[in-house]
Amino acid sequence: MINRLKEDLIRSSAIGRVSNRSVESYGQLNSKMGVTRPEGSPANKTLRDFTVKRMQAAGLLVRIDCVGNIFGKKDGFRNHEKAVMIGSHLDSVMNGGHLDGALGVFAGIEAVRRLRDDDFQNQRPIEVAAFTGEEGSAFVVGTMLGSAVLTGKMRVDEALSTKNTAGRTLDYVLTEIGYKGGFEYCADDVDAFMELHIEQGPVLDNDDMSVGIVEHITGITWLKSIITGVGNHAGTTPMHMRQDALVAAADAVRFLYRRAQEMAISLNSSIVGTTGHLNVIPNNMNVIPGMVELGFDIRDSSLDSMQQLTDEIISFLNGLKRENGIDVQVESPDMQVPVKLSEEVIRTIEKSAVQAGVSFRKMASGAVHDARNMTSIARTGMIFVPSVNGVSHSPMEWTEWDDIEKGVSVLTGALKALSAC
Amino acid sequence: MINRLKEDLIRSSAIGRVSNRSVESYGQLNSKMGVTRPEGSPANKTLRDFTVKRMQAAGLLVRIDCVGNIFGKKDGFRNHEKAVMIGSHLDSVMNGGHLDGALGVFAGIEAVRRLRDDDFQNQRPIEVAAFTGEEGSAFVVGTMLGSAVLTGKMRVDEALSTKNTAGRTLDYVLTEIGYKGGFEYCADDVDAFMELHIEQGPVLDNDDMSVGIVEHITGITWLKSIITGVGNHAGTTPMHMRQDALVAAADAVRFLYRRAQEMAISLNSSIVGTTGHLNVIPNNMNVIPGMVELGFDIRDSSLDSMQQLTDEIISFLNGLKRENGIDVQVESPDMQVPVKLSEEVIRTIEKSAVQAGVSFRKMASGAVHDARNMTSIARTGMIFVPSVNGVSHSPMEWTEWDDIEKGVSVLTGALKALSAC
Repeated sequence: MINRLKEDLIRSSAIGRVSNRSVESYGQLNSKMGVTRPEGSPANKTLRDFTVKRMQAAGLLVRIDCVGNIFGKKDGFRNHEKAVMIGSHLDSVMNGGHLDGALGVFAGIEAVRRLRDDDFQNQRPIEVAAFTGEEGSAFVVGTMLGSAVLTGKMRVDEALSTKNTAGRTLDYVLTEIGYKGGFEYCADDVDAFMELHIEQGPVLDNDDMSVGIVEHITGITWLKSIITGVGNHAGTTPMHMRQDALVAAADAVRFLYRRAQEMAISLNSSIVGTTGHLNVIPNNMNVIPGMVELGFDIRDSSLDSMQQLTDEIISFLNGLKRENGIDVQVESPDMQVPVKLSEEVIRTIEKSAVQAGVSFRKMASGAVHDARNMTSIARTGMIFVPSVNGVSHSPMEWTEWDDIEKGVSVLTGALKALSAC
Repeated sequence: MINRLKEDLIRSSAIGRVSNRSVESYGQLNSKMGVTRPEGSPANKTLRDFTVKRMQAAGLLVRIDCVGNIFGKKDGFRNHEKAVMIGSHLDSVMNGGHLDGALGVFAGIEAVRRLRDDDFQNQRPIEVAAFTGEEGSAFVVGTMLGSAVLTGKMRVDEALSTKNTAGRTLDYVLTEIGYKGGFEYCADDVDAFMELHIEQGPVLDNDDMSVGIVEHITGITWLKSIITGVGNHAGTTPMHMRQDALVAAADAVRFLYRRAQEMAISLNSSIVGTTGHLNVIPNNMNVIPGMVELGFDIRDSSLDSMQQLTDEIISFLNGLKRENGIDVQVESPDMQVPVKLSEEVIRTIEKSAVQAGVSFRKMASGAVHDARNMTSIARTGMIFVPSVNGVSHSPMEWTEWDDIEKGVSVLTGALKALSAC
């Protein structure tokens, strides 16, 4: 059974990859396994074509909406009911992994095939969705573009006029690759949504669990700051006459790390704080850094905790002024609130996992997914499968076939339950 | 009297400057006052031509050596004695200040003019020198190229075959601008050397002193290190599963700064330690830094202290491995030892300052100068004049005319004393 899905994944993994050897022959963790299929690229078109064929072969009725989202429908016995939708995205980051997104689409198709194998009669219609432009690797202004339009967060004309990194509109690109459909999917038509996705973190791999059931998608705060000291000659400026922007920045890096660690322990939470971006100006060995640009990323499933850590780093940054005789500018934080997934869908997935005898744990998703958009229109759940060593957005991304099988069986069970009533 | 030198400096300051307004009309600290005259550039040639004319007008016999060093000789009563040489360099960094180097050359010419005004008869011959390529802004492989050849640290053919950033040899460039002379200056011919230079640091300006008498040119240690952690998703990697290279690097930045501060106080020394270079890889807000490249600069006039601080930061870097689960590579340090200037010349300069009623302090030079090379062949001294706000290598470089006058009068007095016997 798994061989059918495995074949889909092996075949799709060759699309957009530089190397012409297959995932299978390479084995895992090979740096030549990366795929590059940003939205609208030739590789993206080839993968879309392959997906449509596999949907049709699975007996699904394929429709393309006006922003290129692909839907494959399996009619239900009560076809007027709202649908159960499952799916993910087909686009990738540059030189990313072959499962990020595509797994959720092919797992969806496989789940439908298993319903047919089992002669299962769904009451509600089922839709397998492949969303447009989730990664934002081509159309950088908005990630999760396709699901944003579906859920009314972005207007159709706005999405279509968005330009990619080559300066072409989504409208142009979709028309060119033959995926500009004529209809607009009605947000009211979805009852529940499930997305199977690789974890993109080390939690399941570390805990030796096959499946993660997502309870929250964490909120994200992005905070930018510029620390201005005095750039001066490193040899001629005595220690007590310095306003070194990098020393102040180093304190901020350390502070955020320490406080995030402390809060994660004391609150037993998944809160994280990262200084991922730091630019030194002028960045010469013999010049005291006159300016440092900093970018902080703070996430948690609790809005309060995320807000508290954000407030603390802002206070700390402002406090640096007095101590170091420097100037600190802090931009207003850019915040996405955490969202809670549907308790009913979580319970349904959990039951399915228990029934299938699959080891699982509940967890938060620290990355955003199309599922985040879907929470505003449908009861939404997510199933994670382990990323080996927690790696993603990299050619080294890998998930064991056995874990994929377990994830799909949990998805299939939950799909039966949700579409049965 | 000062007007003669001021005119030389104002006229020379226009050479290689973008703006066509004069230093005088601008006043100080204007960002359009920067000069760009790397070795061999048209601006460098124009400034050389101007310098030669001013030397000749001052009655000096001008000679150009085989690497383009310019010497203007005033015969002495006992002309077979070794010379007293004074001077500095004419080349500049890109968009640097108009006094860095050029001041020492024109101050030298002015000092000779004052000897004539005073009917002073020097016993030893006097040479005013303008050295080739001190800054290394065009011929980047070696700074202080001209004085390196003069003092036998670099072979003539090696210097001449050195290529500039445009790929042309020094030989070619000097021939092109008409400054490839035929003779090689004999290192044995110099008894004493003095260089008047801007401080390039804030010490004199801060202490409200007009002149600095340099006792040491500090040693420099450059140390490079690469910290390797694990680059991972900032949202999905729990705090306790991180190997964050930037957090470790931040600790190293803080450590070097703190220890340099502590040692400067406890040893009452001019020791400095700077992390001027820090690159984060990949430097994305949502990725935990997987790698950080660091560049440290450590200087002191005591070799022991410099070595101690270097050892301490290396130990600290190696210690980071255990604590943070990361890998740290440390390159072997690149070290230039400190040099002590001549006590006799220092005393002579000090007497001259006292006689002229000029406020002064003794100090170390944290930057290197041609004088460093000269210590190996001659009794050497340096006179600093204040850099307003400690700024140099910048269009904002400035020294008050009054301080320049005081510096030149101290130089003149010392020149009389050294050339009198």
